[in-house]
Amino acid sequence: MNTLNVDLGERRYPIYIGPGLINRPELLAPVVENKPLAVITNEVVKKLYARSLLTALGRSDVLMISLADGEDQKTLATFESVVTELLEQRFDRTGILLALGGGVIGDIAGFVAACYLRGIGYIQIPTTLLAQVDSSVGGKTAVNHSLGKNMIGAFYQPACVLADTSTLQTLPDREYRAGIAEVIKYGLIRDRKFFAWLEERSSAVAARDPDVMVDLITRSCENKAAVVAADERESGIRATLNLGHSFGHALELVLGYGTWLHGEAIAAGMVMAGELSKRLGWLEPADCDRITTLLRAHGLPTRPPPGTDPQSVLDAMTLDKKMRARRLPLVLLKSLGEATVSADYPADELEVVVREACAG
Amino acid sequence: MNTLNVDLGERRYPIYIGPGLINRPELLAPVVENKPLAVITNEVVKKLYARSLLTALGRSDVLMISLADGEDQKTLATFESVVTELLEQRFDRTGILLALGGGVIGDIAGFVAACYLRGIGYIQIPTTLLAQVDSSVGGKTAVNHSLGKNMIGAFYQPACVLADTSTLQTLPDREYRAGIAEVIKYGLIRDRKFFAWLEERSSAVAARDPDVMVDLITRSCENKAAVVAADERESGIRATLNLGHSFGHALELVLGYGTWLHGEAIAAGMVMAGELSKRLGWLEPADCDRITTLLRAHGLPTRPPPGTDPQSVLDAMTLDKKMRARRLPLVLLKSLGEATVSADYPADELEVVVREACAG
Repeated sequence: MNTLNVDLGERRYPIYIGPGLINRPELLAPVVENKPLAVITNEVVKKLYARSLLTALGRSDVLMISLADGEDQKTLATFESVVTELLEQRFDRTGILLALGGGVIGDIAGFVAACYLRGIGYIQIPTTLLAQVDSSVGGKTAVNHSLGKNMIGAFYQPACVLADTSTLQTLPDREYRAGIAEVIKYGLIRDRKFFAWLEERSSAVAARDPDVMVDLITRSCENKAAVVAADERESGIRATLNLGHSFGHALELVLGYGTWLHGEAIAAGMVMAGELSKRLGWLEPADCDRITTLLRAHGLPTRPPPGTDPQSVLDAMTLDKKMRARRLPLVLLKSLGEATVSADYPADELEVVVREACAG
Repeated sequence: MNTLNVDLGERRYPIYIGPGLINRPELLAPVVENKPLAVITNEVVKKLYARSLLTALGRSDVLMISLADGEDQKTLATFESVVTELLEQRFDRTGILLALGGGVIGDIAGFVAACYLRGIGYIQIPTTLLAQVDSSVGGKTAVNHSLGKNMIGAFYQPACVLADTSTLQTLPDREYRAGIAEVIKYGLIRDRKFFAWLEERSSAVAARDPDVMVDLITRSCENKAAVVAADERESGIRATLNLGHSFGHALELVLGYGTWLHGEAIAAGMVMAGELSKRLGWLEPADCDRITTLLRAHGLPTRPPPGTDPQSVLDAMTLDKKMRARRLPLVLLKSLGEATVSADYPADELEVVVREACAG
């Protein structure tokens, strides 16, 4: 098992990474001991892991709140239903929420923890690759609004994160691959060596080799934790974690939430960000090709589906929450392994990139 | 003008207190300069002060969001409608919300600021006595749930607070008196001299003497700021600010939100807390009488309305968010000017106090 500390002063917390961690209650004991507990999960994950977790906790009084599966659950209405259930059960402010599931569960449960009685403790137990390397680290919580993703949320840090790599073996292929997109992102934005490491181990990564999994997740979390520690509330460098996200969020909105997985949209978005970076003369053409090659090796999309309307994508991008008063800052690559946030690009270059990507 | 700094480290902020401050834009300039602005207010306050504020700001591009007046607006539905309007106007994360109004507006606008795009800046411009001495100081934001008051919210500090004492002159009598209940509370929980000061100036306070107003608000805010600085997230001493609130919130719920003003419910609640403290042998009977006398001098209720069902009040108290797993901690008075939080009282004494208060 690896232990990684996210260094956020008084909000510092550990991430535990390794196989079979759900069955090791001693890791959670310092946080949960003698406190009211509620597990927030979804129907799919509940069948796979809820029993193991409850057995490990060894408690009969744990409240279980199970949501339907899917991104379309990430709404203020679901948030309210969870709050109502907690209130009906008189769950008090000493209680701890355990978010057992993927990014959707983590985001909803984290936002409930942030707001319930003005904030209670919570633990992330991410069961998807995407959640283990991204959404469970850094304290971003949110629900979607019909006008955009993650528009309502909070920065709210968990008490700890338990990344049980054994859970990755039960992930559907498509979800696993979507998580790989975010892993590749860390290489692109700040860790060129890690990108090369991923290229070399492409087959082992695709085969979910257990030995590779622990390293892959640890290295991803290290990259994310370093960025978050430097900029918890995303006033600067943290925004580079959003490589491909302005494009990707727009794609998700235009295609309809749930058509593409988040990681799939981010994959196509990173290619567009790479293309724009290349057109600006920053990213070497050969390195730009490496992005597409590695994403394709994992069966990820590298452009919007045929027939996508480029203007809709461009319009949706300006609604993304990272917009400024007039200009849209984008995460771009100065080189492979170095990202920057810039609004200093010609608007028509962005338009060309989106139009060409949609044209296929 | 008095300036008071709330000492919260990186979340430190100033409170400006004095007459005519809405017309002094230089106080807000360091926060609002060149940023998108939205004023959140209600129909009543808008008519009185929105024009002055806009004139002072000297900007034509300020988004104005006006809600209906009243506590029944403090819901997740209203919260969502404000978020939707901000999104529709593409209000971005560099923007600043200005909460112009009483506690309801401050609580909703503050909670929107806490969650909109995961948090943006905001300024409190409280226009009621209650908001100036209580809800605008300390960063508590929230909306109500049908199962209880302030169940969904956040601790989220404003960039500054502008307490314009001139606005108190337009307050309806009943609202002004309700604010006095919270002022008296500061004397009771930690400032015996201030309590005596209020007794001596009872008539001038009731007449809203402008000279007395600035001192009264400054002294109240000093007391609150000191408590908040010592315990921002209410893990200890801050809970003493809730003197009378467990009783008062229960009364508000049982009577139906809006039947009594918050301060009226707190007044009756403080008397019950005082009575229980007296029965425990802590508060001198003569000091207990002083509480009732001062509240009555300001026309405030000192017990629940005739016919209130005591069992409903007791049941509602256990749903209050300050409940623990089994015991209900209450803010009680060790003496006049010294509060403590304790669950160490006989349950039947609490019951007697509530039953006797309801019996009149």
